[in-house]
Amino acid sequence: MEDDNTIFIGKKPVMNYVLAVVTQFNNGSNDVLIKARGKAISRAVDVAEIVRRRYIRDATIKDVRLNTETLKGEGGRDVNVSSIEIQISRQAPQVEIT
Amino acid sequence: MEDDNTIFIGKKPVMNYVLAVVTQFNNGSNDVLIKARGKAISRAVDVAEIVRRRYIRDATIKDVRLNTETLKGEGGRDVNVSSIEIQISRQAPQVEIT
Repeated sequence: MEDDNTIFIGKKPVMNYVLAVVTQFNNGSNDVLIKARGKAISRAVDVAEIVRRRYIRDATIKDVRLNTETLKGEGGRDVNVSSIEIQISRQAPQVEIT
Repeated sequence: MEDDNTIFIGKKPVMNYVLAVVTQFNNGSNDVLIKARGKAISRAVDVAEIVRRRYIRDATIKDVRLNTETLKGEGGRDVNVSSIEIQISRQAPQVEIT
């Protein structure tokens, strides 16, 4: 999957990210990857659920990966943060050969 | 999986839930299901990651399911809330037949 298809979830309102994901699909992508860390993880799940239930009805959650990332915190201390990657996929349109 | 193996994540400190999950494994369970809704979803991911990285090293995240639940909100209005179910599994001990 290309990096272009990745949406990073931050602190903006949920619908901003929903729009970003829907736009990816409408531009012809069949896979979008939603990534988030820490407290934004809940918002990432909201985004995935709203996209597939309200906007892209033929999209499904193909894979969910959990991980831990080590970031440099204040004073150079290592801080562990949980992360999530949600892959939403849509069936590629079937080309009929007649 | 039995209901006994399910840990619901709420607003308590993360380590309370980590201890609950670790206790399930130590009592002989090979599968534990972590469930959370709304903002507790981030905490559920933290719990799963801390358990598998620090305490139960042979445990893996076997499945992650995302969903939307409709709850009755204030004044009887329906409110949609995202939910997560994280299944953590450990290999059953191999019984050697000699």
